[in-house]
Amino acid sequence: MKSYKELTREELLELQKELQAEYEEEKAKGLKLDISRGKPSKAQLDLSMPMMDVLNSTSDLSSEDGTDARNYGGLEGIAEARKLMGDVMGVDPSQVIVFGNSSLNIMYDCVARSVMFGVMGSTPWCKLDKVKFLCPVPGYDRHFGITEQFGFEMINIPLLEDGPDMDMVEEYVNNDPAVKGIWCVPLYSNPTGTVYSDEVVKRFANLKPAAEDFRIYWDNAYAIHHLYEEKQGSLLNIIDECAKAGNPDMVYQFCSTSKVTFSGAGIAAMSASPANIADVKSRMKWATIGFDKINQLRHVRFFKDYDGLTEHMKLHANVIRPKFQALLEKLDKELGELGIATWTNPLGGYFISFNAMEGCAKKIVAKCKEAGLVMTGAGAAFPYGNDPQDSNIRIAPTMPSPEELTIAADLFVTCVKLVSVEKLLEA
Amino acid sequence: MKSYKELTREELLELQKELQAEYEEEKAKGLKLDISRGKPSKAQLDLSMPMMDVLNSTSDLSSEDGTDARNYGGLEGIAEARKLMGDVMGVDPSQVIVFGNSSLNIMYDCVARSVMFGVMGSTPWCKLDKVKFLCPVPGYDRHFGITEQFGFEMINIPLLEDGPDMDMVEEYVNNDPAVKGIWCVPLYSNPTGTVYSDEVVKRFANLKPAAEDFRIYWDNAYAIHHLYEEKQGSLLNIIDECAKAGNPDMVYQFCSTSKVTFSGAGIAAMSASPANIADVKSRMKWATIGFDKINQLRHVRFFKDYDGLTEHMKLHANVIRPKFQALLEKLDKELGELGIATWTNPLGGYFISFNAMEGCAKKIVAKCKEAGLVMTGAGAAFPYGNDPQDSNIRIAPTMPSPEELTIAADLFVTCVKLVSVEKLLEA
Repeated sequence: MKSYKELTREELLELQKELQAEYEEEKAKGLKLDISRGKPSKAQLDLSMPMMDVLNSTSDLSSEDGTDARNYGGLEGIAEARKLMGDVMGVDPSQVIVFGNSSLNIMYDCVARSVMFGVMGSTPWCKLDKVKFLCPVPGYDRHFGITEQFGFEMINIPLLEDGPDMDMVEEYVNNDPAVKGIWCVPLYSNPTGTVYSDEVVKRFANLKPAAEDFRIYWDNAYAIHHLYEEKQGSLLNIIDECAKAGNPDMVYQFCSTSKVTFSGAGIAAMSASPANIADVKSRMKWATIGFDKINQLRHVRFFKDYDGLTEHMKLHANVIRPKFQALLEKLDKELGELGIATWTNPLGGYFISFNAMEGCAKKIVAKCKEAGLVMTGAGAAFPYGNDPQDSNIRIAPTMPSPEELTIAADLFVTCVKLVSVEKLLEA
Repeated sequence: MKSYKELTREELLELQKELQAEYEEEKAKGLKLDISRGKPSKAQLDLSMPMMDVLNSTSDLSSEDGTDARNYGGLEGIAEARKLMGDVMGVDPSQVIVFGNSSLNIMYDCVARSVMFGVMGSTPWCKLDKVKFLCPVPGYDRHFGITEQFGFEMINIPLLEDGPDMDMVEEYVNNDPAVKGIWCVPLYSNPTGTVYSDEVVKRFANLKPAAEDFRIYWDNAYAIHHLYEEKQGSLLNIIDECAKAGNPDMVYQFCSTSKVTFSGAGIAAMSASPANIADVKSRMKWATIGFDKINQLRHVRFFKDYDGLTEHMKLHANVIRPKFQALLEKLDKELGELGIATWTNPLGGYFISFNAMEGCAKKIVAKCKEAGLVMTGAGAAFPYGNDPQDSNIRIAPTMPSPEELTIAADLFVTCVKLVSVEKLLEA
C-alpha cells in the first residue's frame, strides 16, 4: 500500500468512489453500537459477582475496630478500607479518606470546597476575579467539564511522551497566582495511555507555586489497570516526592474501584498530606455523617488485601487485552502505511488515542454516527470540547463484545480513509 | 409530691443534700453511656439483615428497564427506586432523584449549588452580601450546621404546637429578599415530634417570597416513622399544595431509608417540581456519573413496594416504642408534679424534647456527663448552639438497650432535680 499523500488526484478520486461504496454498504447494515465511554463490559462486571456473596444476613458487619458498619458515623471510612485504598495509592491509611462510589465526585467536591471556602485558610475562589486550571491535552473530558462548569479559565498543556510539557507547567504554576490547579492522570493517561516519567513526577513535586492554594489533582484512576503482565508502566509516588521536596500539601490524589469491581457501585478514595486531610474533613463533616461503610466492608472482605486486588486485575486484563490487540492490529493493517493517522499503543488504562489528519476528526466521528456507531465526540478530550487541530479521537474498546468491536473497527477504518481522501482532494 | 416552687428554703436545702448523695451514688457506678444522637439500635439494624440476602452472585442486577445496575450511568437513579422513594414522599417518580446513602448530603449539595451557581438562573449566593435562613427552633442541629458553615444569618422561628410560627415566617419570607430558605422537619420534627397542621402546610404553600430563589427545605425524614399504629400524625402533601398555590418551584423535599434499613448504607432521595429537578440535574451531571444503583436495587427488591416499607416500619416501632414509653413513664413519675420541666410525647420520630427551668439545661447536661452519661449538648437544637433560654435538652432514646435506658433515665432525672433545686436556691 502506498501512502495516500503519494497518490495522484485521479487515484484519489477512484479510491473515494470505492470507499464511498464500502461505506454505504456498512451503513446499510443498520448498526447500533456505542463505544463512546470507557465503560467495562458485562464480562468484566461478571468477574466481581462473587463479591455479592461476601456479605449476607448472617455476616458480622463490624469493621476491624468494632465499628458497626450499618450505623451512622465514620467520616473517613472504615480502617481496613483506608488501608486497602492507601495501598493502591502508596499512602499511609491515616492519609486516606474513603468515600462513596465515585472518585469524580470527590474531585468535584474538592474543587467545590475550594470555591466556597478556600484551601487551608486561603481566599475562597468564588471571591477571586480569575481562577485558572492547567489541562494537559488530550485529557479526560469530565475533568475539564468540572472546571468549565465553575467558569475557570482552562489552559492547554501539551501532553508529551513522558507527561505534560513541564517547561510550560513550571512557567505557569511558578509565576501566575491565578493558576490554582492542574488535572493529571499520571499512569495510563486518559486517553493517550501516557505514563509520567520519574523526571516529570519529580518536576511536579518541585514546583514553586505562585499560589499557596495551588493543588495537583492527581487522578490515579488506572493505578492497577495494567494490560500486560510483562510490560507495565510504573509511577513514582507523588505524595512521597512532594513531601521530600518540602511541598507536602501540594497534591490531592484520587483512586477508585469503579473499573475494578462495579463502575456504579465501587468505592472511591482520596489521599493527601495530614494537613490537607484535616482541612477536607473539617468541611466534609457538615456535608455528611459518613459514606456507605457496608460497601467498603464488602470490598475489603472480597479482596482481603492489595495482592487480592492485583490478582483480580489480571482477570480484567485477560478480558480487555484481546480487544485492544484486535483493534490495534486492525489499525496497523488498514492504516499503518497510509500516512493519514497515528495512534497510541497503551500498556494500561481504557483508551486508545487516535490522531487523524488535521481537520478530519469531527467529520470521521460524524460519518461513524451516521452509520450507527457512536464514538466519543471529536474534541471531547480538550477543554471546551475544542481540539485546535480537529485531529484527536478517543477510542474506548472495552465495552463492546469482540464481535461488535470488529464491526466497529471496520466501519471506523472506512470512515477514516474516506474522510482523509476527501481532505486530500480539497487540498 | 409538691411542686419544687412551693418548697421553703429549708426544704430545698434538705432536698439538695439528698439529691447530691443520690447523684454521688450514681456517679460512683462509673457509667459509660451515650444517648447523644438519634441512632437506631443494634436490634433495629438487625431487622434489615435479610436485605443482605436479596442480591447474590447469581442475581440479575438489571433494573426494570434493563439498565445494568453495576455499570456507570443513571444520574437520577433506577426507575423502581424513584417509584419507591416517590411513594414515600407522595410524588411522581419523574420528580424524584435517588442519590447515595445520605439525605443530609443532598441538602448540603442543594445549598452548595445555590451558593456556587444560584437557583434556576438566579444570582449565585456567594455573590450576595447577605443570605438568611429561617430556623424553626428547637430544630435539627445538622441543618443549622450547614447554614452556619456557609456563613448565612440564621433567624430563630418559634416552633409552635402545629408548626413554625407562620406569622413570623410570612413576615420574613414575603418581605426580605435576603431570606433564601427555611429548614423544616414537618412530620415528627427533630426534636419536638411536632406534626405540621394542614393550615401550616397551606400557609407555607401560599407564601409570596420576596426572593425568587427562596426554597422550603422540607426534610421529610420521618415520613413513615410512626411509633403507634392507632395514633399517627398525617401531613399534607407540600409538593401538591405548592403546585395548587401557583408556587410549584418553591420547595425541595428530602427523605431517606437511613432509619428504615441501615443508617450508614441506606438510600436517600429528593423530590421537587420538574423545573427544579431539571435545574439540579443540569448541575449534578458535572459532579458525578451516578450513585450506587446496586444498593438502590437491593432496597427495592427487599421491600418490593411502599406497603413493604410500611410493614417493615412496624417492626421498628415495636423495638423503639417501649423505650419511648419507659422513658416517658419515668419522667411522668419522677418529674410530673414538680413544676420544674416539661417534655414532648411524640407520635413518631426519634426524639423527646425536654425543657428544664430557664438557665438549667447546660448544667444538667454537664452533670450527666460528669457521671458518665453523654447527652446531646444543651443548645444543640438552636442555631449557633445557642438556646436563649438555656432550657432545651434533646433526648434520643433509640440507641441504648432498655436496661441502659433505665439507668440513663435515673441519672438524668436526678440531675434535673438537683440542678433545679440549686437554681431555686439561687433565686
